[in-house]
Amino acid sequence: MSRFAEIPMRNVGPIRIKGAVEGDISVPLATLETPLWFSVGRGAKVSLQSEGITTTILDSRMTRSIILEAPDANSALTAARNIAGSKEELQKVVAESSHIAKLLDINWQIAANLIYLRLEFFTGDASGHNMVTNAADKIFGYILEKYPELSYCSISGNYCCDKKVSAVNGILGRGRSVVAEITIPRGICEEYLHTTPEKIADINTKKNLLGSILAGSLMSANAHYANMLLAFYLATGQDAANIVEGSQGITFAEVKDDNLYLSCTLPNIIVGSVGNGKNAPYAEENLAQLGCREERNPGENGDRLAAICAATVLCGELSLLAAETNPGELMKAHIRIERGKR
Amino acid sequence: MSRFAEIPMRNVGPIRIKGAVEGDISVPLATLETPLWFSVGRGAKVSLQSEGITTTILDSRMTRSIILEAPDANSALTAARNIAGSKEELQKVVAESSHIAKLLDINWQIAANLIYLRLEFFTGDASGHNMVTNAADKIFGYILEKYPELSYCSISGNYCCDKKVSAVNGILGRGRSVVAEITIPRGICEEYLHTTPEKIADINTKKNLLGSILAGSLMSANAHYANMLLAFYLATGQDAANIVEGSQGITFAEVKDDNLYLSCTLPNIIVGSVGNGKNAPYAEENLAQLGCREERNPGENGDRLAAICAATVLCGELSLLAAETNPGELMKAHIRIERGKR
Amino acid sequence: MSRFAEIPMRNVGPIRIKGAVEGDISVPLATLETPLWFSVGRGAKVSLQSEGITTTILDSRMTRSIILEAPDANSALTAARNIAGSKEELQKVVAESSHIAKLLDINWQIAANLIYLRLEFFTGDASGHNMVTNAADKIFGYILEKYPELSYCSISGNYCCDKKVSAVNGILGRGRSVVAEITIPRGICEEYLHTTPEKIADINTKKNLLGSILAGSLMSANAHYANMLLAFYLATGQDAANIVEGSQGITFAEVKDDNLYLSCTLPNIIVGSVGNGKNAPYAEENLAQLGCREERNPGENGDRLAAICAATVLCGELSLLAAETNPGELMKAHIRIERGKR
Amino acid sequence: MSRFAEIPMRNVGPIRIKGAVEGDISVPLATLETPLWFSVGRGAKVSLQSEGITTTILDSRMTRSIILEAPDANSALTAARNIAGSKEELQKVVAESSHIAKLLDINWQIAANLIYLRLEFFTGDASGHNMVTNAADKIFGYILEKYPELSYCSISGNYCCDKKVSAVNGILGRGRSVVAEITIPRGICEEYLHTTPEKIADINTKKNLLGSILAGSLMSANAHYANMLLAFYLATGQDAANIVEGSQGITFAEVKDDNLYLSCTLPNIIVGSVGNGKNAPYAEENLAQLGCREERNPGENGDRLAAICAATVLCGELSLLAAETNPGELMKAHIRIERGKR
Repeated sequence: MSRFAEIPMRNVGPIRIKGAVEGDISVPLATLETPLWFSVGRGAKVSLQSEGITTTILDSRMTRSIILEAPDANSALTAARNIAGSKEELQKVVAESSHIAKLLDINWQIAANLIYLRLEFFTGDASGHNMVTNAADKIFGYILEKYPELSYCSISGNYCCDKKVSAVNGILGRGRSVVAEITIPRGICEEYLHTTPEKIADINTKKNLLGSILAGSLMSANAHYANMLLAFYLATGQDAANIVEGSQGITFAEVKDDNLYLSCTLPNIIVGSVGNGKNAPYAEENLAQLGCREERNPGENGDRLAAICAATVLCGELSLLAAETNPGELMKAHIRIERGKR
Repeated sequence: MSRFAEIPMRNVGPIRIKGAVEGDISVPLATLETPLWFSVGRGAKVSLQSEGITTTILDSRMTRSIILEAPDANSALTAARNIAGSKEELQKVVAESSHIAKLLDINWQIAANLIYLRLEFFTGDASGHNMVTNAADKIFGYILEKYPELSYCSISGNYCCDKKVSAVNGILGRGRSVVAEITIPRGICEEYLHTTPEKIADINTKKNLLGSILAGSLMSANAHYANMLLAFYLATGQDAANIVEGSQGITFAEVKDDNLYLSCTLPNIIVGSVGNGKNAPYAEENLAQLGCREERNPGENGDRLAAICAATVLCGELSLLAAETNPGELMKAHIRIERGKR
Repeated sequence: MSRFAEIPMRNVGPIRIKGAVEGDISVPLATLETPLWFSVGRGAKVSLQSEGITTTILDSRMTRSIILEAPDANSALTAARNIAGSKEELQKVVAESSHIAKLLDINWQIAANLIYLRLEFFTGDASGHNMVTNAADKIFGYILEKYPELSYCSISGNYCCDKKVSAVNGILGRGRSVVAEITIPRGICEEYLHTTPEKIADINTKKNLLGSILAGSLMSANAHYANMLLAFYLATGQDAANIVEGSQGITFAEVKDDNLYLSCTLPNIIVGSVGNGKNAPYAEENLAQLGCREERNPGENGDRLAAICAATVLCGELSLLAAETNPGELMKAHIRIERGKR
Repeated sequence: MSRFAEIPMRNVGPIRIKGAVEGDISVPLATLETPLWFSVGRGAKVSLQSEGITTTILDSRMTRSIILEAPDANSALTAARNIAGSKEELQKVVAESSHIAKLLDINWQIAANLIYLRLEFFTGDASGHNMVTNAADKIFGYILEKYPELSYCSISGNYCCDKKVSAVNGILGRGRSVVAEITIPRGICEEYLHTTPEKIADINTKKNLLGSILAGSLMSANAHYANMLLAFYLATGQDAANIVEGSQGITFAEVKDDNLYLSCTLPNIIVGSVGNGKNAPYAEENLAQLGCREERNPGENGDRLAAICAATVLCGELSLLAAETNPGELMKAHIRIERGKR
């Protein structure tokens, strides 16, 4: 009895994207919240009326943390330093488990007599969850053999940190860290978004920055990244549970030279152009449409996908912020769109 | 061009549930991560071998926060106190917008000269996002008319806090707050989970509690709630972006009378048995299978859905924690299951 | 062998304060960081050149949380609801322990089978730590007698939350919540602070808001509240460990009608004009100088003290932000002042 | 008019310390909360009855972050990578500002078009606040000259993060990171602390771990580190505002071989044996008593001071946790001690 949950999907855009990706690109979004298509679509129109959305990839890595138990904190410290100092040997161990995975960095924390070892890998065009678990498994075996004073505690220590809220993913990186930026002339703001650069900057400060701080948010200052991420992840065959860390990002807006400068900084976009879930026909088709199934150097298709994702997020974020500057607009838009679909 | 992202769906269980729901219930889960079916299924088997998973609904509400701008903090304070003291009048305004929505509580914060008014509603069997936006819209109009010294800032102030990480949702509530508990005899732990009560309690403390704290998590101490929530939400037509706040919850485990006591506290399960997305045939069918389309008092179908969801989360959490107590087991299981599906 | 740590103390100001307090008030500050006197002093001068610093007390309460263990979550829920519904009986219990303490509110959380009961009290002019522990002790005894299914877990459950970082203190309140605001004409900004309203607003957004978010701060968006709080607390005989929660507050700045509007929102100022530590001669003298030893209604001397404290914090915050808008100024000022003191 | 706030000071102990420090050491504590002396004193007695408190220094650094503004995110990325890659040149710049300061590491974050550059230094036996501000000032000048596309935003960007709550200080380090551990035989627990290893482990999990998570704490799971840190910092001439980050640490307790294993992990102890505030006679005397004014390699006196501080924190933490396992004990102890002092 094989069935499917069917999430409605539509192409939105094109979005004009620059920087890490160049072109006018239509983006498939799968969502039950149909106003999202219109919201992102409005942002896309603005991108075509300006010089486009510039995307910059700051970083890329996938992580797994393991917990090792030592007799005491001092033994833990000695072992952690030795392990962190043996990156080359560990890379050899990793190479046996995968042709693609490369150990980029090791970060450790010690609490009590426990070592939390955060292993950070390059995983090419795959989001890399299984690849890093497998590599961590091999490394774990190697360490336990070489350091008999250490014992196994857990293959995943929540210092990774997978599909959970954290600060570590923002500071040390997990997935691709991307900034999307746009400069919108005042006239375009007024005509397409029915608002002004000043109003957008103001609402961003009072809602996304102050409001989030009051809510006790953590490394999160945006209106609704999770909505766009979910729709993009579902359409492209991603493990959408990664929207949890994806939701933690920062929208910034200011008036510059009479224009609106708006940017979305997304430290944890976790996507792959290959791997589990990417072989469904709809996912294949969408990844191909986005130009992410080309022959490229390892990681470049993934970079492209992350950059398009960030630009899509910016479109939806911009449109919602603009709507919220006007009393009543959000609700009216929802009613109009939802009635329209019947 | 209407298409669908098709997420594979399978029934898992039955899970033996008690408390807020009574019965052995098969649960549909839509996921690209097929090992999840086996993981939740293993937990379900354990529930049948014990006295089942007891579910308790602690609270239920949906929220929207609005931002009002006052001339200064003192005016903000006077207005906030007056508004919070006029619940009855506000409820009359709400009643005009909806037969179902009822204003439960008002919480306000002031920062600078800004009022962040968190409006909390009963929304029956709907998750209630649109219902509360609509009600907040009406309340906003009423307030602006009655308090001419206040001006509009935003219909959503991030103090709600919708689809974003926060502390406020845990402390003041958003969605249904549910505890799922199970007591597992030692022998069942050993036979079905290949581990011991002590090992589960130990890994829970060192990974879910300590590891999360080290990662800079916020109100989040679990292994992978987001995975089960996503699969459950997708299968039942929910807006799955709400897994962001759903992911913030606490797993607790201890050895009691030689058995394992394990519980999952989920403060923010956001589900509805009616509303947007629930009319797709697969969603209708699944909601009916879960017994959430019966004639009941308003809110009771939603409560039932949330309780089943929490029990499902517990099954998956239990199984993963058990697997992680054994070196290598997690990776072997993934490989076996993923090969198996081809 | 009784000795003292001697912290140098100096009067700074006067500061022009309005709202909750009216007057030009000199404030004693005890600190090892002598540049702080000059920094707060500069802010004080600005207050005299403008219409002063307006202070607003939003809330006042002191809290203690206790942990009760129930057989399961459902029993915990029933008990928690009953306890929270018996405020009058509990107030009678409290009245036996203190003439001053009044139970204002009860908030509970349940995790697993545990009840975290946050008891919130009015404590008059005392900061109230011991008063609420004593009251909580009495309430605990009463509850254990009335609810035999509950058992003692801890008299303090970290959900209070005393001298530790938290979100709960910001959302539910602990100590006095105070906003201090000032409007500074452009000319005064330029003459006294060598900067502009625009520069202050800009650095506040990029440093205090964005920088704090990037650092993974929690409900904290300011430059150095802790410095002023420590100096004020030490000079007035407070338990200075409460600067931990005091440090969590929000500075906001914007250009309004060509002037600078700057405010400090301090949700957790924990001070008393009576109680432990206030009888030392220097503390008595300073409290008297601040006008906080007058005959007033219970709580009003404490309110006054908190308002003056908030105004003092604003002075220091303003001055540092202004200095940091200019390259090199901060370091030069430190060197000049520290050389000067030799 | 030079006056002092006089904080009562008493020697507590001796505490038996091992690891980073070896010896039985009496510790001066300055506090208005006199029960603290008895509480730490009780822990000290336990240390003498066991094998002592083992201390391990995990890390040592002082930090300052600066904000640079770039034309856009891509320019920011190029510049940040180049700056981070030029550690040697930057070290030369640092060397001109100080003989002691050494640049250990550079961490950067980019949000929007802004670079947050976290400069991490070795600062010898000084806590190093001014040393790193001075070095950052020099580095800033060098960078602005070499990268004309960048402009000055702030000498301190809150990503440092100084005297404020954050996650970055725990993950990347600030001050000395120290673990203090003790193993206490069951009999000693019972005789000296009137409790059992099981009770301490239990209350630690339910109060310090679960309670803190429920309170929305961040990297903070302890009962009252801030109290001991304040008393230790005041007695030794430290800038006590650093207890804010110091308060973020983790207490862990478990039953091991029928004994109690308890540890305190303190990632951010910020102390110096030289520098501002250390020349007051009482501070000199106390630092000498602690053996922190000996001829040693740079940094070793500071390490010693931090290790003693951590052991002191453990003593107070242990004693309070033990007291809280017994209903009524905490309040009774406070009353007894406070009456006693009159």
